[in-house]
Amino acid sequence: MHPIEKYNQRAQKIDSLLCVGLDADPEKVSGSQFEFCKNIIDQTHEYAAAFKINSAFFEAKGIEGMEDLKKTVDYIKKNCPDIFTILDAKRADIGNTNNGYVSAIFDWLGFDAVTLHPYLGEEALAPFLERKDKASIILCRTSNLGASELQDLEVAGKPIWQIVAERVSEVWNKNNNCMLVVGATYPEEMKKVRNIAGDITFLVPGIGAQGGDLEGVMKAGLNSEGLGLIINSSRGIIFAADPRAEAQKLCEEIRKYRN
Amino acid sequence: MHPIEKYNQRAQKIDSLLCVGLDADPEKVSGSQFEFCKNIIDQTHEYAAAFKINSAFFEAKGIEGMEDLKKTVDYIKKNCPDIFTILDAKRADIGNTNNGYVSAIFDWLGFDAVTLHPYLGEEALAPFLERKDKASIILCRTSNLGASELQDLEVAGKPIWQIVAERVSEVWNKNNNCMLVVGATYPEEMKKVRNIAGDITFLVPGIGAQGGDLEGVMKAGLNSEGLGLIINSSRGIIFAADPRAEAQKLCEEIRKYRN
Repeated sequence: MHPIEKYNQRAQKIDSLLCVGLDADPEKVSGSQFEFCKNIIDQTHEYAAAFKINSAFFEAKGIEGMEDLKKTVDYIKKNCPDIFTILDAKRADIGNTNNGYVSAIFDWLGFDAVTLHPYLGEEALAPFLERKDKASIILCRTSNLGASELQDLEVAGKPIWQIVAERVSEVWNKNNNCMLVVGATYPEEMKKVRNIAGDITFLVPGIGAQGGDLEGVMKAGLNSEGLGLIINSSRGIIFAADPRAEAQKLCEEIRKYRN
Repeated sequence: MHPIEKYNQRAQKIDSLLCVGLDADPEKVSGSQFEFCKNIIDQTHEYAAAFKINSAFFEAKGIEGMEDLKKTVDYIKKNCPDIFTILDAKRADIGNTNNGYVSAIFDWLGFDAVTLHPYLGEEALAPFLERKDKASIILCRTSNLGASELQDLEVAGKPIWQIVAERVSEVWNKNNNCMLVVGATYPEEMKKVRNIAGDITFLVPGIGAQGGDLEGVMKAGLNSEGLGLIINSSRGIIFAADPRAEAQKLCEEIRKYRN
């Protein structure tokens, strides 16, 4: 199935734009990362349109971590196959070297989407972009404090994040399989990206622990179909005393602002 | 030992700036990636100031690939511990998430250096930059055909790669452990980066298969100490009929232009 269609169907079916970020940080998770994630998946899946897994936390544990990463994505695919799966790996190498990442992330692990750095340009990312069955989620305006250092520099009056939004939506998106990362911490920028990028879907980190405001994000970011957002929350859900309740609460807030 | 010092000592000791790129591409290497790399290491180590391993080719093979990656770097550390080791992983996540990559690449695998994307800014990369015992090699001007799409855009009359060179050498390099990736395919740009960045070391991909010219690179890139370059060749050596002879030939050419 077309990856954007997969996400949209799930979002419509359960009326949710919530992405639960399975950040099994080994500094906080003692014991099996897979068991930790399995528990979170069991508790939150009915509210989740997507699950996002950050590769760094699993790579930190070497072979054991990679085994747990594989088990986690297999568990999602087996038990809730219509939930959209994102590997937040922030990759990007040159040309054919990317075939290695494509094999690992899309084929061996079987994720629906991966996050990518834009710095090397469209030509370098071709092995990702050519995969019509998978989504390439390009970093545009990130949610970290220091994002402005390079992303806000102006090229002919436009910040670089705006150039990235234009290039991706107008040129790189030939297979209609691109998305953009636009942080929740910058709703003004999100509004501008929405104006530039048509109905393209945004992956939105920064809600909750990083301080992003949900109402502001949804007003700025929903597309013409009432979709176009994948709203990620990680720490605010997974390390809560009751992850199910937190997921439900955020899902219901999303429904309120969406409808 | 300080990472730049480690590289410089090896380069001086054997009079070589050659980095052998262990690109064990599974599309070309049938059988064990470790055995392939071990053979190349055995044949080329006496000419190598550094070994660079591209993570993508190993990740492509899942758990088996990660095991072979670990065995390969362990083999280098055991048999030629003074050779500088680089994981070409092109990583960069936000803040503490990078701790996962730091643990994996510097501690579990034990590489001396890693390649990083600049797009998220210095603040995001702090967990790498704070490791005084390891080198952070920031992508500046890459060697791929499409590098110009974003890297050549001008900010107040300067291309973005020039801004990255300035930021890294003037601000990010507080621990004197930064290097820059500057492709061999753009010697004019390399000359400018050398003028901006003082004696900082460049990792230079693109010699050989990608068409970069060694003499031009060395004239443009050597620093005031006759060092400052890590000249990488991958395919031109490792898939040659006689990898040892190719490494020796390139090493001798480097010596000729260096002295």
